[in-house]
Amino acid sequence: MEKIRTLIEEIKKYNINLFGKDFLLTWDKTSDELKVVLIVAEVLKEMRNNNISPKVFDSGLAISNFRDNSTRTRFSFASACNLLGMGIQDLDEGKSQIAHGETVRETANMISFLSDVIGIRDDMFLGKGHTYMLEVAEALQDGFDQGVLPCRPSIVNLQCDIDHPTQSMADLLHLKNNFGSLENLKGKKIAMTWAYSPSYGKPLSVPQGIIGLMTRFGMHVELAHPEGYDLIPEVIELAKKNAEENGGSFSMSNSMEIAFKDADIVYPKSWAPYSVMEKRTDQLLNNDKEGLKILEKECLENNAKYKNWECDSLKMKVTKNGNALYMHCLPADISGVSCLQGEVAADVFDKYRIETYKEAGYKPYIIAAMILSSRFKDLAQTFGSVLNKNQNRIIN
Amino acid sequence: MEKIRTLIEEIKKYNINLFGKDFLLTWDKTSDELKVVLIVAEVLKEMRNNNISPKVFDSGLAISNFRDNSTRTRFSFASACNLLGMGIQDLDEGKSQIAHGETVRETANMISFLSDVIGIRDDMFLGKGHTYMLEVAEALQDGFDQGVLPCRPSIVNLQCDIDHPTQSMADLLHLKNNFGSLENLKGKKIAMTWAYSPSYGKPLSVPQGIIGLMTRFGMHVELAHPEGYDLIPEVIELAKKNAEENGGSFSMSNSMEIAFKDADIVYPKSWAPYSVMEKRTDQLLNNDKEGLKILEKECLENNAKYKNWECDSLKMKVTKNGNALYMHCLPADISGVSCLQGEVAADVFDKYRIETYKEAGYKPYIIAAMILSSRFKDLAQTFGSVLNKNQNRIIN
Amino acid sequence: MEKIRTLIEEIKKYNINLFGKDFLLTWDKTSDELKVVLIVAEVLKEMRNNNISPKVFDSGLAISNFRDNSTRTRFSFASACNLLGMGIQDLDEGKSQIAHGETVRETANMISFLSDVIGIRDDMFLGKGHTYMLEVAEALQDGFDQGVLPCRPSIVNLQCDIDHPTQSMADLLHLKNNFGSLENLKGKKIAMTWAYSPSYGKPLSVPQGIIGLMTRFGMHVELAHPEGYDLIPEVIELAKKNAEENGGSFSMSNSMEIAFKDADIVYPKSWAPYSVMEKRTDQLLNNDKEGLKILEKECLENNAKYKNWECDSLKMKVTKNGNALYMHCLPADISGVSCLQGEVAADVFDKYRIETYKEAGYKPYIIAAMILSSRFKDLAQTFGSVLNKNQNRIIN
Repeated sequence: MEKIRTLIEEIKKYNINLFGKDFLLTWDKTSDELKVVLIVAEVLKEMRNNNISPKVFDSGLAISNFRDNSTRTRFSFASACNLLGMGIQDLDEGKSQIAHGETVRETANMISFLSDVIGIRDDMFLGKGHTYMLEVAEALQDGFDQGVLPCRPSIVNLQCDIDHPTQSMADLLHLKNNFGSLENLKGKKIAMTWAYSPSYGKPLSVPQGIIGLMTRFGMHVELAHPEGYDLIPEVIELAKKNAEENGGSFSMSNSMEIAFKDADIVYPKSWAPYSVMEKRTDQLLNNDKEGLKILEKECLENNAKYKNWECDSLKMKVTKNGNALYMHCLPADISGVSCLQGEVAADVFDKYRIETYKEAGYKPYIIAAMILSSRFKDLAQTFGSVLNKNQNRIIN
Repeated sequence: MEKIRTLIEEIKKYNINLFGKDFLLTWDKTSDELKVVLIVAEVLKEMRNNNISPKVFDSGLAISNFRDNSTRTRFSFASACNLLGMGIQDLDEGKSQIAHGETVRETANMISFLSDVIGIRDDMFLGKGHTYMLEVAEALQDGFDQGVLPCRPSIVNLQCDIDHPTQSMADLLHLKNNFGSLENLKGKKIAMTWAYSPSYGKPLSVPQGIIGLMTRFGMHVELAHPEGYDLIPEVIELAKKNAEENGGSFSMSNSMEIAFKDADIVYPKSWAPYSVMEKRTDQLLNNDKEGLKILEKECLENNAKYKNWECDSLKMKVTKNGNALYMHCLPADISGVSCLQGEVAADVFDKYRIETYKEAGYKPYIIAAMILSSRFKDLAQTFGSVLNKNQNRIIN
Repeated sequence: MEKIRTLIEEIKKYNINLFGKDFLLTWDKTSDELKVVLIVAEVLKEMRNNNISPKVFDSGLAISNFRDNSTRTRFSFASACNLLGMGIQDLDEGKSQIAHGETVRETANMISFLSDVIGIRDDMFLGKGHTYMLEVAEALQDGFDQGVLPCRPSIVNLQCDIDHPTQSMADLLHLKNNFGSLENLKGKKIAMTWAYSPSYGKPLSVPQGIIGLMTRFGMHVELAHPEGYDLIPEVIELAKKNAEENGGSFSMSNSMEIAFKDADIVYPKSWAPYSVMEKRTDQLLNNDKEGLKILEKECLENNAKYKNWECDSLKMKVTKNGNALYMHCLPADISGVSCLQGEVAADVFDKYRIETYKEAGYKPYIIAAMILSSRFKDLAQTFGSVLNKNQNRIIN
């Protein structure tokens, strides 16, 4: 309880403007706002662990719209919404009439008459996911302004083509707790590197999210990937700018080994090249099955040149004290376990398995914190009301 | 709060018998009962807008059984049940064993041991949907009478082959609010007309629901459709009888223009001809794919003769002051937007878009009102208990 | 209320160790533990019937993982969890990334960060279902021990390859109420027999569950099936041992008539032969479609030799006073109703239809009791808190 009260006091120190706002990209938010989201997440975690129910909604609907498969994020979103008191209704476009030409605007309003939050995952098509979320946001704002909706539901980006803020913020909270504080992250080196995977077409949003966020906390962020596996240029520019403004650095190389050198943290993960994802987006939209097959074949052949981009114990040895923190958004392609050869050697993964699980465990609280901070203006007061209510999560 | 108390007082004036009853067809209900459902819906809407939680169920299951695709009605039902405190469990016949020969009777009981409400959409097969709901109702009553079920869940018709009461009642509430009162609807002309759509096979339940309901409130209801696009004869007879008994009128023509003349309200919407739906039902039940293809082709060719049945600005000019209220259950086939040529011109739809959204926005509250009035005997007392509980929907 | 208080007092008499434990097999539990689960189920049923809400969770997630189709069990689990206050999140492996090679261990942790209960149905593959549940259990325990999970969710077996404890325990509660007490079951004869069905491949877990459980309460359990339709040998051994230890008997024959002779209870139900299920499991795992077709054909031909294994009125005549209690887990294959010829004659089923519905009606409460007893250490105290809270399920 003492810890909870201390954290609530800390929230009061910050001047933020998250109320009524969507959470689409971490770089839309000030550093103070990001810090508050982390603290709110910690309060919620502490509350639940101390059997205090932070149910701030007596009823209310949270809508999940997964335009790509998901287990982890689906359960994280469901857990977060349930914790706060909302029911979850899935907008399954397979089942719905959306497939039959409904406009985004109309649907956004039709599902939102009694909704508080909409979580969207749309990471398949480069140039589309974030744009789609903005379209939904505009439709909701218009519906609210014109008196159609009693409130303006907030959107939480559960992964788009550009950013994956619930992942990167959970990663940041994991780092905060691992290194003791955000302050302690200053000067630390994180290597965000490509890694080989026998599959292809993985979104760019995780590496982009990481370099876009970690450059804001004084870290030395090094991005490494084989030639051709570029990320969206705008995000690269953003990372450079962030680093300049926040006293860290951002560098790039084409070598996992160079990136790992003296790193405090390594984040080796597969992704598709930007240009391939662009081509693939066109083919998917045009239902060009033949083209997709050829592209996949080419891309896998190209991938295969970089099988040595595996996070193994030899490469780990060059990290700080041979003991960098290994991170992954999961599921990892583990050599000899989930595939013949993959992103990470089995012995390295085994050593850090529990750490990666804990990393993932912050996500439900990060999502809940994003929701809470978008729905409640005075977060310290809201938490005060929760404590006054004195409701156990599980009956005593 | 004053408005809420006034509405609750008004409920007390009516003598109704909705408790323990299903809501399958509006014409099963007295006009007083329909009026009370409207008022209950308004109370619920006011409560939610004033952050009062009308959660009357601490737990309880609401079952949705959608035998046809649905986004709007699915979310409306989920919103209504969530607002009242119930969890939603979908009876997905694709996933369940029902497809493997379970009887309706058994399933109805098996899913209802701890259920309070069952919402059913079954509008595909003419002669089947309403019949199915009656079968379920009988099974539930039998289960309750024989001590299998602790309570008899109420059924809410979320659209059948005959009526679409949650739609028509939401439409009526929209009209009540647009014209100031039900009293003000007397003498108003509403044109329920067929409209061209590039698709076919749309249910008859919306136009049937509209002419079956609006003829009870002293309105002049005019039904217009091309020759052959008849509705179920019994509903036509009912509309005539309603009009005679309630001081309005019911007329029919084969011209959109004649129907629109001096109309206060227009409701142009596509539907399939009765005879086609009959034939189609047989073919669907017999899985006669060849027959279905031929029927669709014939029907679309026939439809194409009536492309001029579009609600455009020219036709709108002949309505009362050129300014009739345009209504639609959504999604509308909008010419040049969702199809090449459809039910409504883009400029007409644009003018009324927000009105159609508001029209749809009543549906969750209408469904909640149907549920509430079927589960609670003394609605004024129940609302009194809700107010005494003084529970905010969102924490203060 | 008096009845509830009496039942709660009775719970106090037993010394049990269900807290923090999974419910996978009835034979993992002591007889006292099983008795307490029955009493807890009865308390919950009484509470709900008296409009007392036993909502012990203010929030919390219950996960359902149905690896086989299900209507009844799905709704029973949803009802149970909703009654206790949890939200339900379905782990649909079709939708999730599990199909893409995620390990059981990882997924078990990823879905459990804020979960209290996981219900699993995995009855398709002989030798797999129970093993899978043990794997999940181990992963959850590891996650909890290593600080990944804030609590260790309990697993409820919703049917595996070996046992179907929610079914057999619901059956036992049905018998307890039918015969007045567990004590009264002593010396009663129950015939668990195979019955003919035009389908094949039905799990062995129901008959195994019945002979494994009923032999513990002093009953004379007789198992009958055509030659070759054996159950898992270990369960047969267990039934023998149970009978010896608990003053009843366990016998086997190859005749429905012999089994029915003087039986107080008959439970005629189709299942596949053990050896066929073993072969089928291999074929399913190897996706051997040709082999599956041949096996099905052979098996159905073999089945067809035993069409006389139908529970008809003639066979019922030889039971105790010609009036044995007929039981079935539903849905039954009813001759002339759900199939040409099946497990039970229509007139026999009709006579007992309502009884089988009531039998099924215990399942939600049994599941809720299994959950409650795994999550709360002092059940009498928990029920005391529920009564003190004095919360109506439906508002007064």
